[in-house]
This record gives sequence, C-alpha cells and structure tokens, in this order.
Amino acid sequence: MLETRTEHDLLGDRQVPTESYWGIHTLRAVENFPITGRPISTNPSLIRGLAFVKWAASSANEKLGILDHRRAEAIGQACREIVEGGWHDQFVVDVIQGGAGTSTNMNANEVIANRALEILGHRRGEYQHLHPNEHVNLSQSTNDVYPTAVNIATILTIEDLLDALRVLQEAFASKAVEFAGTVKMGRTQLQDAVPMTLGQEFATYSVMIDEDRARLGEAALLVHEINLGATAIGTGLNAPAGYAEAACEKLCELTGLPLVLATDLVEATQDVGQFVHLSGVLKRIAVKLSKVCNDLRLLSSGPRAGLNEINLPPVQAGSSIMPGKVNPVIPEVLNQVAYEVIGHDVTITMAAESGQLQLNAFEPIIVHSLSDGMRHLAAACRILADKCVLGITANTDLLRARVEDSIGLVTALNPYIGYTASTRIAQEALVSGRRVADLVIEAGLLDRGELDRLLSPEHLANLRAGNATQAPVPTTAGVVS
Amino acid sequence: MLETRTEHDLLGDRQVPTESYWGIHTLRAVENFPITGRPISTNPSLIRGLAFVKWAASSANEKLGILDHRRAEAIGQACREIVEGGWHDQFVVDVIQGGAGTSTNMNANEVIANRALEILGHRRGEYQHLHPNEHVNLSQSTNDVYPTAVNIATILTIEDLLDALRVLQEAFASKAVEFAGTVKMGRTQLQDAVPMTLGQEFATYSVMIDEDRARLGEAALLVHEINLGATAIGTGLNAPAGYAEAACEKLCELTGLPLVLATDLVEATQDVGQFVHLSGVLKRIAVKLSKVCNDLRLLSSGPRAGLNEINLPPVQAGSSIMPGKVNPVIPEVLNQVAYEVIGHDVTITMAAESGQLQLNAFEPIIVHSLSDGMRHLAAACRILADKCVLGITANTDLLRARVEDSIGLVTALNPYIGYTASTRIAQEALVSGRRVADLVIEAGLLDRGELDRLLSPEHLANLRAGNATQAPVPTTAGVVS
Amino acid sequence: MLETRTEHDLLGDRQVPTESYWGIHTLRAVENFPITGRPISTNPSLIRGLAFVKWAASSANEKLGILDHRRAEAIGQACREIVEGGWHDQFVVDVIQGGAGTSTNMNANEVIANRALEILGHRRGEYQHLHPNEHVNLSQSTNDVYPTAVNIATILTIEDLLDALRVLQEAFASKAVEFAGTVKMGRTQLQDAVPMTLGQEFATYSVMIDEDRARLGEAALLVHEINLGATAIGTGLNAPAGYAEAACEKLCELTGLPLVLATDLVEATQDVGQFVHLSGVLKRIAVKLSKVCNDLRLLSSGPRAGLNEINLPPVQAGSSIMPGKVNPVIPEVLNQVAYEVIGHDVTITMAAESGQLQLNAFEPIIVHSLSDGMRHLAAACRILADKCVLGITANTDLLRARVEDSIGLVTALNPYIGYTASTRIAQEALVSGRRVADLVIEAGLLDRGELDRLLSPEHLANLRAGNATQAPVPTTAGVVS
Amino acid sequence: MLETRTEHDLLGDRQVPTESYWGIHTLRAVENFPITGRPISTNPSLIRGLAFVKWAASSANEKLGILDHRRAEAIGQACREIVEGGWHDQFVVDVIQGGAGTSTNMNANEVIANRALEILGHRRGEYQHLHPNEHVNLSQSTNDVYPTAVNIATILTIEDLLDALRVLQEAFASKAVEFAGTVKMGRTQLQDAVPMTLGQEFATYSVMIDEDRARLGEAALLVHEINLGATAIGTGLNAPAGYAEAACEKLCELTGLPLVLATDLVEATQDVGQFVHLSGVLKRIAVKLSKVCNDLRLLSSGPRAGLNEINLPPVQAGSSIMPGKVNPVIPEVLNQVAYEVIGHDVTITMAAESGQLQLNAFEPIIVHSLSDGMRHLAAACRILADKCVLGITANTDLLRARVEDSIGLVTALNPYIGYTASTRIAQEALVSGRRVADLVIEAGLLDRGELDRLLSPEHLANLRAGNATQAPVPTTAGVVS
Repeated sequence: MLETRTEHDLLGDRQVPTESYWGIHTLRAVENFPITGRPISTNPSLIRGLAFVKWAASSANEKLGILDHRRAEAIGQACREIVEGGWHDQFVVDVIQGGAGTSTNMNANEVIANRALEILGHRRGEYQHLHPNEHVNLSQSTNDVYPTAVNIATILTIEDLLDALRVLQEAFASKAVEFAGTVKMGRTQLQDAVPMTLGQEFATYSVMIDEDRARLGEAALLVHEINLGATAIGTGLNAPAGYAEAACEKLCELTGLPLVLATDLVEATQDVGQFVHLSGVLKRIAVKLSKVCNDLRLLSSGPRAGLNEINLPPVQAGSSIMPGKVNPVIPEVLNQVAYEVIGHDVTITMAAESGQLQLNAFEPIIVHSLSDGMRHLAAACRILADKCVLGITANTDLLRARVEDSIGLVTALNPYIGYTASTRIAQEALVSGRRVADLVIEAGLLDRGELDRLLSPEHLANLRAGNATQAPVPTTAGVVS
Repeated sequence: MLETRTEHDLLGDRQVPTESYWGIHTLRAVENFPITGRPISTNPSLIRGLAFVKWAASSANEKLGILDHRRAEAIGQACREIVEGGWHDQFVVDVIQGGAGTSTNMNANEVIANRALEILGHRRGEYQHLHPNEHVNLSQSTNDVYPTAVNIATILTIEDLLDALRVLQEAFASKAVEFAGTVKMGRTQLQDAVPMTLGQEFATYSVMIDEDRARLGEAALLVHEINLGATAIGTGLNAPAGYAEAACEKLCELTGLPLVLATDLVEATQDVGQFVHLSGVLKRIAVKLSKVCNDLRLLSSGPRAGLNEINLPPVQAGSSIMPGKVNPVIPEVLNQVAYEVIGHDVTITMAAESGQLQLNAFEPIIVHSLSDGMRHLAAACRILADKCVLGITANTDLLRARVEDSIGLVTALNPYIGYTASTRIAQEALVSGRRVADLVIEAGLLDRGELDRLLSPEHLANLRAGNATQAPVPTTAGVVS
Repeated sequence: MLETRTEHDLLGDRQVPTESYWGIHTLRAVENFPITGRPISTNPSLIRGLAFVKWAASSANEKLGILDHRRAEAIGQACREIVEGGWHDQFVVDVIQGGAGTSTNMNANEVIANRALEILGHRRGEYQHLHPNEHVNLSQSTNDVYPTAVNIATILTIEDLLDALRVLQEAFASKAVEFAGTVKMGRTQLQDAVPMTLGQEFATYSVMIDEDRARLGEAALLVHEINLGATAIGTGLNAPAGYAEAACEKLCELTGLPLVLATDLVEATQDVGQFVHLSGVLKRIAVKLSKVCNDLRLLSSGPRAGLNEINLPPVQAGSSIMPGKVNPVIPEVLNQVAYEVIGHDVTITMAAESGQLQLNAFEPIIVHSLSDGMRHLAAACRILADKCVLGITANTDLLRARVEDSIGLVTALNPYIGYTASTRIAQEALVSGRRVADLVIEAGLLDRGELDRLLSPEHLANLRAGNATQAPVPTTAGVVS
Repeated sequence: MLETRTEHDLLGDRQVPTESYWGIHTLRAVENFPITGRPISTNPSLIRGLAFVKWAASSANEKLGILDHRRAEAIGQACREIVEGGWHDQFVVDVIQGGAGTSTNMNANEVIANRALEILGHRRGEYQHLHPNEHVNLSQSTNDVYPTAVNIATILTIEDLLDALRVLQEAFASKAVEFAGTVKMGRTQLQDAVPMTLGQEFATYSVMIDEDRARLGEAALLVHEINLGATAIGTGLNAPAGYAEAACEKLCELTGLPLVLATDLVEATQDVGQFVHLSGVLKRIAVKLSKVCNDLRLLSSGPRAGLNEINLPPVQAGSSIMPGKVNPVIPEVLNQVAYEVIGHDVTITMAAESGQLQLNAFEPIIVHSLSDGMRHLAAACRILADKCVLGITANTDLLRARVEDSIGLVTALNPYIGYTASTRIAQEALVSGRRVADLVIEAGLLDRGELDRLLSPEHLANLRAGNATQAPVPTTAGVVS
C-alpha cells in the first residue's frame, strides 16, 4: 500500500504520497487538469526557469532580512539541484492548466520546500519548519514568478533555435558556393522567366534565414524584460522595498542573462505582447522555411516526369508499393512543423486577446504552444541541414540545356529589338518549337556574334558582378531585412 | 446651402438633410463609424433582407391588431420598393459598425418610415404620423430583426455561390470526358508514381466540387432557422402572442424560402453557430479550389523548363518585360480569393467566440466577412470556368512519352517479380537512364509479350473498369463525401 | 551490448535490435524524424485502426487466393493482438513525420510481419518466410491503408467526444431545471437589457451543445467513406479485381462500423476534405464552449467587486499570495483547449491546401492535430461537467434585487407609454438613481396596479409559456441548428 | 456611341475608349478580374507609389542616356500629376488580381504613357511616339516596380497609423493623470484581487500602445528596403549598369524617404518577409487594442447589474426597443476591426507561404489586406480616442466602497499574520459577508491602528512610489518592450 502523509489547504485535508516532493496543491491540480497527459517536466527549460526565479527570490529575501540564512540556503540548494536537472520528475501538473500558472508555481513551491526540508534534516510535509507559501513563495505571486520563469525558459529555447537556424543557413550558404557556376532557368509564376544560377537560388535561402535570425534575435530582446517584484497585479503589494531590484540582480547573476525590470509593473503583469510578437516572428520563420521546402520539393520533382533539377539525398524508401521511389520526406516534415507553428500563432493570438483586466489567465497555453513550436522548428532545421541540404546534387547538364532551349532568352533582346518584336519572336518560338536565336537571325534582326554575346547564360545570370553567388556574410545584427 | 430638418433622440437635436430618407440615428452612426468607407448598400442582399423582415413584421402587427391598416400598407409598399432595388442609396452606415446591428436596423426603420410618410402624403421627418421605432420597429428588436435579415441575405448569396460552383464543376466534368483517353504519369509527393489519365485527374476536380456543393447545401439549411419574435434577448418581451408565428409565416411567403422559427429563441438570439459553420464550409471549399488551382498552375508550368502537361488559354500578356510570357493569372486570382476566405474564417471565429451572455455584438463583421467571401468566391469560380478550364488543352504526346519512360512502371511488376527485385530494377533504371522494360528483359525476369501487356498504360491507369473517366453524376443531395 | 539482426533496404544494410518487432524502415524513420519525441503509439486509436486494416486486407487477399491460409492466419492473429492493445510500444515513429504516412505503414508492416513470423515458429527478421511488403502489405499502398486507418481512428475518437459532449450537455440541462425559477437581468453588449431566468441562461448552453453534437455526428458520417483498394493513386494498380470490396466488407465486420467505399478512388486518395470539414466542426464546438466558459467566468466574477451571480465550486486554492481567492480554473482550462483546437484548424487548413496532384503528403500533421484536439476537448468537457457545472449555485436574492432595481424594466412599458416617453424615464432613472416604477407613477403615466402586473419579473422573463425553462430534449438527429 | 481607338497586344486587337488613359492591357485585366468591384484607386497611396517609381525610373534612364530628355520630362510630368492626386480614376484594375501585380504595373504604364503623349502634343494611343512598355517601363519589370511601389505605399500608410496610435495613447495617458487618485479593486482571472488605482489601469493602456508604436516603427524600417533594378528575377537583366543606384537615389529624393537597395536582389525579389513581419506586428497591435476595448466594455458594464466602474460617453441610442440603453459601440467597432486584422494575418501568411521559386505571385492580396487593415485600424483608433476615451468618467465613490468591502485586502496581512491565518479570515469573510478588518480585530491578530495603516487603499495601490500614476513618457525609440 502506498504510504501517505496528510496535507491541508483551504478546501480541507488530503493524503499525499509520502515519497512525493509535491504536495496538496499539486495533487488537486493534477486531478483538475487531466487534459493532455503531458506534465510540465516535458518543458525542462521552464522547470529550470522556475528554480532560477525561486533561488533569486530567496536570496533577495535573505538580503532584505525577511528570510533567515538557514532557510534561504536550503531553498537555494534545492533550486540549484533543479537547475542542474534534478527532481524534474516531481513537476507533474499538466502543460494545459487553468489558473494562470498558479498550479505550476505551487508545484515548484512544494517541491522546493520539501527538498529544502530534507536538506535541513526534516521530513517532507513538515511545513512548520519551512513552508511552500510563507517561505519559498515569500515576496512573490504566481503573477510575477510564473511570467519571469517563462521568459527565462523562452530565452533558453530561442537560443537553441537560433543555433539550429545558423546550421541550416550555413548549409545553404555552402551549397550556394558549390553551385555558383551552375546556370539554370529562373521562374516566375511557375513559368520560364530568365536565366540565373543555382548558386543564386541557394544563396537566397541563406539570406532569408539570415534575416529571420536577425528578427528572432530582436524578438528575444523583448523577452528579457521581467516583472519580478510585481506580485499579484503589479503594485508590488507584500514585496518589501528593494526586493524587485535585488531579485532581478540575483537572477541576472544566476542565469547569466541581461534581464531588466519592466518600467511599469502593472502593465508588464497583464501584457503578453512579447509572446504575441515572438509568435509572429516564429510564424514568419515558418512561412519562409516552408516556402524553401516547397521549392526543394518542386526542384527535385521527377525523376522523369518532373523538373528534375536537383537530387535530394535518399534517406528512406519512399513507398510500400512503388519500388525504388524516393520521396522528399525531410522537407515534408519541416513543412508540417511550419503549419503547426502557424496554427499555434492563432492559438497564442486568441489566448492573448482574451486576457482580462490585470492578468492574462491563459499564459499556460501560450507557453506550451511557443515551446513546442520552437523545439519542433529547431529539430526540423537541423534534420533539414544534415539529412537533406548538405547532400543535394545538381543535374548540371540538363539545367544548361533548358536555358539554351528557353524562350525566355528573348527578354535579353528587348533593349536591342524592342518589346513588340521580341513578343513576336517568342510566339513564333512557342508555336514552332524552334530556338529563339535561330529565329532572330532568320528575321535579320541581329547577327550571330552579337547574339552569342547577348544570350550567353552567364551574361544573363548577371555573373559579371558576381553578386549573390558567394555565400552571404551573416548579418544577424542588421536591422533592415 | 443644404436644406435640413431637425430630428431628436436621447442625446439631443440634430440637423438632417431634408432630402434624406435616413434620420438622426443613421446620422450619428455614420459619424461614429467612419471605418471602411463602404456603406451597407454594397451588400444589396442585406438591404433586401431587411425590407423583407420589416414588411413581414408590419403585416403581422396589422393582423394582430396593433398596427392600423393604413400605416401597415404604407410600410409594406416602402419595403416592396426596397426589395425591388429602390432606395438602396439611403442605406449609408458603414459595413463595420458597433452596436450589434442596431445602426443598420435604425437606418432601415428611418428609411422605411420616411418613405412610408411620403406615401401617406406627409413629409419626411413628420414622425408623429408614422414613427421609425414605434411603428416600423413595432414588436421588434434589432436583436431579432437583424439576424433574420442577415440569414435571408446569406441564403440569397449562398444560392449564387452554389450556382457558380455548378458552372465550375461542369467545366471540369466536360474536360474529364475530353481527356478520358489521355494517359499520363500520376504523382505522389511530386515524385513520379504510376500511370493514370488526364481525364481521371479532371474528374477528380469535378467530384471534389460536387461534394463541396453538397456540404454548402447542408450549411444553408442551418441558416433557415430564424429568431424573429425573440425581441431583445429571446424572451419575446413586447411582441404580442402569435406575433412570431405570424411574422415568420409572412416572411416565408414573401421570400419564398422555407424559414423556420428556432425552438429556443433565447439560444437562437445569442448563438452565431450557423455562421461559424458556414464559414467552416466556405473554408473547406476555398482549400479545395486553391488546391485545384495549385495543380493547374503546376501542370501548365513551362513551357520548356516546366511540367508542360497542359496549356491554359492565354488571357493577357504575362509580363511587362518578358515578351511572349503567359502566366496562369486566372488560377492565381482564385488562390488569392481562397486565402481571403480562409483569413475571414479566423475573423469570424474570433467574432463568434467573443459573444457575451445574451447577444453577440460582433455580427456585423461576421456578416461582412461572409458576404464578401462568398461573392468573391462565386466571381472567381465563374471566371475560372469561363476563362481558364474550358479552354485547357493537353500535350498528349509528351504525356504518353513520359509514361513510357517512367520508372514508376515497375510498380506494376511487383506481383510478378516481387518488391525486392522491383526495387533493384528501379535503381538500375534511375542510375543508367534506361527503360524499365529493357532491364527486366535483360535480367530474364519476364518476356517481352507479357511485359507489353502488363505495362500498357491503359492497363495501368485501370481503364478497363472505365471508372472515373466519365463525368460524375452530380449528387448534391448525398450525405457522404 | 545490444544484440542485433541485419536488415536490408534500397539504401543498404542496417543493424536492428534483435528484440525489436520493428525493422529497418522503422529504424530509418525514427532517425529521420526526431521532431516531437512523441511516438505514434500515443494515439492508440490509430494503432488499432492500422491493425484492423491490415487484418481485413490479409483476409481479402486470402479470399482472392493470392495469400495462403497459414500466412493470412498468422497476420490476422498478430493484428488481433494489436487491436486488443498488444505491441503498441513497437509503434515508435514520430507523430510528425514526412512521407505521407509511409513510415507509419511500414512500422505496422514490420511489427505485424515479425509477430506473425513468431506465431509461425520463425524468428524476427526471417522475412523469406513472411515479408512486411510482399505479404503484410499485399494489394496495398500507404496511400490507401493509412487514410483508411486514420478514418477508423478518427471515428473512434469522435465517439468519445460525442459522449463527453453529452455528459456536459446533461449537466447544463439539469441546472436549467434547477434554476428555472431564478429571475435575473439579461444583458446585451454587457449592458443591462431585460429580465430572464437563470434557467433560460443554462438551457441555452444545453441547446448549443446539443446542436454541436448533431453537427459532429454529421461530420463523422463523412469519415466513414474509405479508399481501401485505391493503392498508390486510386487506380487500384496491383490490387486484384474484387479486393477493394472484399477488404471493405471484412473491415466493416471487424470494426462494426458502416464504412463505405468511395465512388471515385482517385479523388478519395488525394482529398482530405473530410478532415477539413471535421476540423471546422471542432472549431465550431470550441468557439461555443469557449463562449460558455467566458460567460461562466463573467457571471461568477467577484465575489464583491464582480457580477457575483453564480458561484463555481472551488476545486483548488486560487493564489499563492492572495489567501482565500478561488479562481475559475476549470472554465479557464477549457478556454485554452478551445484556443488550441482553433489553432489546429489553421494547421489543418494549410496542410490540406498544400496537397499536390494525386496525394496529400501532409496527412500526418492533420491526423495528429485532429486527434490531440478531440481528446483534449473530450477531457475538458468531462472535467467541466463534473468539477464545475454540476456544483454551481446561484445568488438568488441578489439576482432578483437587481431586476427590481433595473432601468431595463422600462422596455416593457414601450407598448403602453411609447419609446419616446420610455427613453425619458430611463434617462431620469439613470441620473437620479431612482426606480423606474416610481418615476412612471410620479409622471402619471400608469397606475401602480398596472405597473405591478407589467413589471413582474416572471411576466418579463416570459415564463407564461414555460419555453426554454425545461431541459431541452436532445435532438442529435436534427438537421436544423 | 462610345468612341474608341484600336490597340494591339500578343492576343490581338481590342477597342479601347478614346477617352481612356488606360489601354489594352488594362482592359483585359478588368475583364479577367471582376472579383471585388473595388479598383486599385481605392488605395491612393499605391497609385502615388507607382507614380513615384515610374518617375524615378524615367529620370535614371535619362541620366544613363537610354531615354531622351523630351520623353523623360513628359513622363516625369505625368507622374508628378498622379502623385499630386490626378488621374487616379484611370487606375481601374481590381484590388484582387492574378499576375503578381503585372496588371497594376501595366495600368500605370498605360496611363502615364497616354498622359505623357498628350503633354507631348500627341493623341492617346499613338504609342509610336512614346510606348508604355518600351519607354515608361524601360529598365523595369513588374517584379521590381510593383514591390517598390507597394513598399512606398505601405510606409505612407504606416505613418498614418503611427499617428493615430499616438492620438489614442495620449488620450489614455491624459485619463491616467486624471484618475491617478481613484482607488479601486484590481482583478485577476475576473476575481477580486488587490487594490490599485484607475490611473494605473489607464496608464497601462497608454504604455501598451507606446510599445506597439515602437514595434510598428521597427517593422516600418524593414519596408524601406527595395529591389528596384532587380527587373524580372533579381539578376537585373536589361537594366543598365548604374540604373538601380540612380533610380533608388532619385526615388529617395522624390519621396523624402530613406529607402535602401537590398543587398541581394534575387532574394529581395521573391521574399515578402517584410509584409509577413508587418502583419505580425499589426496583429499584435490588434490583439492589445482589442483587449483594451474588452476591458472598457467590461468596466462600463451595467449600469445597475454590471461592474459600473466607469461611464463611456453616449454617442448614439443603443437599442431600437430598449429605451435609454446606451451601448459601448465605439469599443465594439474597434474589436471588430481587430478581428479583421487578425484574419488578414492568416490570409497574408498563406499568400506568403505559397510563393514559389523566384517570385511571389500573390502580392496583390497581401497588399490589399495590409492596406485595408492599417487604414481601418487607424480610423478606429482615432474614433476610440475622440468619441470614447476622452469622455470617460469614473464612479469614484463606488470604486472606493468596493475596496473597503473587499476580501482581497487580507492579502496585505500575509506578512503579518501568515498565508494560513489569512486564508481562514478570507473564508470567514466570504461566508459571513463581514469585513476583513473586523474579523482580524475580533481574532486578536492585529490592532485597529495598525490595520488602518496596513489596509489604507493608497498604501495598497503602492502610491508611495507614484509609479505608473503619471502619464508615461513616450519611448517610441526603445527596443525593449
């Protein structure tokens, strides 16, 4: 039989397993929110964020003389253990929960209190010695602790995503260099347009991701603003003078992050604008990466009835029925993650818009959606780089042949024979299936030598300037996209 | 100088142009909502819907003895004129307005009252003879009149969209017949798969649209439920016994629509579920039509560096710089309308979710979004049918050549040589660029005669059964998609 | 050290753990899709659906004489074990995966093959006796197996959600009866409107959910249409004549579901319209449930500075800092699930719109989003019924006092004193803070006796008819909302 | 009879009205896109943007010696007239159009050519003297002209929105000062929390908007990057060396905007990331403004059965049936505009994600959605400031009474009597209906003097520091939200 201890709250007594570090508040929350089956421990950054905040708060309380050294030290040690990865299995409330994060905060208060009690030589549940609310939560409210922990968790997750984007960007940049001399037809509206190089095409993807990284870095800055010390609604009720500053300073020291206190704590406590903004930037990234994957799938379509311009490395058999079929499964998985992130943006938007008066009660779903989205995106970017982009090869001869065959070449003759004559040549080429150059000469519009110079694919792809054929220098700090 | 008359409301006196049929309430609304610059008259179905409702209400009031015959007749005549297209320019409040439709209702009350006053030989503004609120709005509230008018307008607009979808479906069905014998490669995940016919491809689009029409027809049924007689919140306060039934009956007669009274008027007055549902169905239609247009653009890509399977009829020059370029502009416009409709679905979702207690105050944006979306979709469907689908031609020889060249043919040999051997043959074909049939014979796996039979494209496209090569019979009434 | 066996595919050899029932295709998929960390076994309905389909296919193959009895029986037994809950831990590919479900299908083929090999007395990996592709997948393609399995899984999940909605509906209906005599002010646009009963308010929620259940039931019908026998693109290549019908019949028998074969298999193989439709209906349900929860939170706001009309049962302490505070955490969790479902709808929309030509490659994210959304909604509905709605109490005296105090009462006098006079009385009441009745008498407009009758709250709430004060009869079969 | 002239393009001859400045390309576009009935002239900023670009291009062409002075001057004059508001009625193609803006560009080419022909003394249509494509469009492609014009139009529209946001922010800031001393209950999760001031509440709205303005300013920067000189796909084909720089420099001079050339023109030509980003920021603004309006509607609910904390100025009668009812119609209209903007974000997201290879064909719907959204938001902000916020009054006495009555006061006693004792007092107060202070004294926990000090509302709202009670200083330039 499971051994239990008795705990008490405003609703009465409950039996809690003796071995649990969590207590009665966590127990009720687990019973109240059996929604996804996924505990908050599946977001380790959040658990670490909570421990950092509790640690900083305890340190500030000691400094201000409202928490004795012994308790503060025990709380600090418990938090340190959690930051280092310990006790995460005790964070058991569901990722989707009511209560604006109260249950997450109480889960942290209880685990830290019980671990600190052990450190102090007491047994779990002997709260008369060290109390989850009166000591661990001292000078705090869920409404400042939870958002601050979430911000820290978010920053950690963004850092990982930035790194994954860098990996992907570099993969595209290296292919841009490799394909710098590969001439091909450019397309607009899926119709043959004018020549370019495959290097330019891949450089574009690198530049796009570089810009996205810059935007994500800017969005991350907004998340460095915290409301610690705001307590319930931002008025700082029950937090002693100097607490906010001391706690924030300690938190910067512990995390190594340049966090700053919000100027207006009432505003900071109710506003989730930084998450809406971040989600908007994630959506932007998702949109662009999805576009890139759409392109990769299109360019590698075939092998015989498709564009067949590039070959994605095979990573698994593509079909249970069609032998030898290889599908673009890696781009496809990123496409799906992108759709997920874009859907999350709507979830986050609605949760943000539904905040009322002095608090947004729906921050848990915001946090959950952001965290999942960023982690899935980072995983998909790394897989795309490693298992797809770096192994791409080009069908160089086919690409060049298509350029030489193309009607789009006539565009280059506009300045010499005019739009009207060019249009006539283009129509003739289309109907007859013949080459533009032959028709122009037949019509006596230009001579062969001049034509050869004008229609050189390298000339047309504007390679003289060499622009965009080199891997772009990352410019994460740049403001202009 | 503009001649004016004085009107009065609870906020005081205002000067209204003498020539205006609208009055002080409309004037204030125009001033309060200078948002889009588009008056509600840009939605003529809504104006007609309002007139139908006011007409039916006046008739019911007369029947129940609370409105005298003379006034009722004048109101009825004014409404008839509006139904027939008159006075629409007097409906001037903005399509996006606060107040849950009150301003639209008051605009209608005032225009009808003033027109009725004229009919009775009075001057506009002489409300002592016939009052916008006390007579035209008798037994009514915005909260039952407006939703009922909106439902009628919606039904009228759906009918037009159903017709446009029928036109488009028939266009695809006729091409399915035309292309029934055109063999081509089918593709999954943009990779060559197994053979099919172009007729099967176009029949699919016809079937898809047919199913969409069935779903739209079902959604339309939900919009036939009205809350007339509910007055302010559904309790029917101030509407005499029998009014709801009498007004509804008259409304059915006037509109020719099988409208039904909601069973629970309190629920019907606050719920906009029918519009959320309809919007979901419109989104479904948009998703599928957009997919079809994506396919059309892809299949017609080229002409020399694309799939080049079909040719869309040229409808305008495609480029200001690239002579002879022709772009798939008609599918592109439908894609954009689809994105608009999908965006509107989110707008409608949020407006619906934000309804509070006994009324949804945001019905105007719901109505506006639905109406615009349906009308744009209908226009785009008709244009797609007329200017694109009906003129499509196929590059038959190229299509057949690709089938004969394809590696996907090997799939048909699975049952004879097994998945493992087939895979080996496919890989060899890919690397060597040779044909599957030649490799199979070389390997001694099958003889030429058997191969010819097994690899006949017609056999592979499963034409024996003839299924899906005929235009499908429309089954709008069907329940199962 | 982990013992392994060698397996082979078109990319070469790999070592697979000897103890694994999954094989090389699954191994590659696990490596290719390290996205969420959640295996497909977290959706048990999908695993069961796959086993049902493989079972039916094997049975049809035997019946048509292309699979021997011994192998068919072993495959059937393996499938039965999976249907009954066995071997789910062997379904290890990620819920978000590229390849249009190929990896899920191959995971199933391998697990079933290896379990069947054991049953036949062979060892795992001895595919020469029974092969994942050549026997388990016989006559099949991922492109018909996976959608069919998904449809079955979806139907099972819908059934559970329908049941949860019923529980919630009945909870509201029982409160509607309980509160049938509790008079209160109705509100439109958050402003006091006219009287109603709390029973009417709760009956509304019951009716709304009832309509939602009807719509969900209709959407479920669409999911009963399957494309089994379509194989790769709907042409049925490699499936013998009669297979589709035999497999479908067996599948109906095994599942007990009235599944039907799609008329046009090419269309059915590429279309995901049924999921877009279902998602639209889920969104509708989410919108309405969220609105209901918004209302519950608003009506229970306070206790002293809010509306304070009803009391939600306390289920946990509401704050780590504010003693005695009890928050509406249960409605809040449903709100968040609703936002999640609405976001998923956008994800599903984009995945559906991005399908190209003969297949939608993005069905995995569609399935994942639908499945999570429905399960979370079902859990939230049950919790809302059990932990919130059933325990709600009303502050009856306060509710009645507010009605008697209200200015909205004047509305009932419109028919007797006119809109203009009523407006004047209302303004006077607002400014002076006095009661409407007193002002009307002072103004000599009506006498006390008549007023008492006209202003009786019961009269105003239209209780004479008794409509909407009784629990509505569920009408799941109804077509009209 | 309408007099016409004959024009010719690659599809053949057409009759164009003699009086029209637009020509055959515009005519075909009008026929091809009868979608919304709204011509592009409804977006005057776009028309001005086009004229600016054509003017700059013509100047650069002259400078580079490929366009003679006479033609360049005539083109420049025509453009100047359009910038100054002339000829807008000649811009007649639909706002939703296929072709990636080609029809818009051709409309501009034709109007400018024909007006320039007049200026040069020729007749409209005499293109042998000055040609829409060969002279007006010289060195240009739709694919650089259109995005550049759109960027300019967007910047102009953003500037107006920034100004409208400033007006609204200042309105809230002035009310924050006015209400700085008005004590009230703060609420979290709609439950009474702890005291604050109404000034703090309104200051919050001001701060929120200030942050939004900063974000919008940052997003505007991204739109200053243009791709003029890219021509068809970014390779600059047909634009002479030096053209891009010369045209950009002239464009800066003409517009007064600090535009910059994109570093990678291939990337800039296909990427619409700046619009996705801007839309994300607009969505953020919409979310927050909608939240503010939700609060205003909630705080002003009543007058007798609602929170009744503040009074919104009446701007129109609220009901056609309920006399004297005044509704929050101005916040309601902003809510609806916010939902529209949020929906547009999804439209823009899908249009952006669907861009393929070297061009996004769906920029017209992006532009249309952004432009409408920004203009509606600006209008709604101005109306909210003028017709609502500035006229708000507070029910000061009621607000203070609720604070003194509130149970939330007990929170302030936590540090003195502990969370556990405080919880007991709170429960007792709730059940008994008595005041917290009385219960604390009765229980002997604190004496009256100390209590009076601790429970002073001013103390609780943390007014000592005076923080957030003053109007915040606008900090548009700030990076951290």
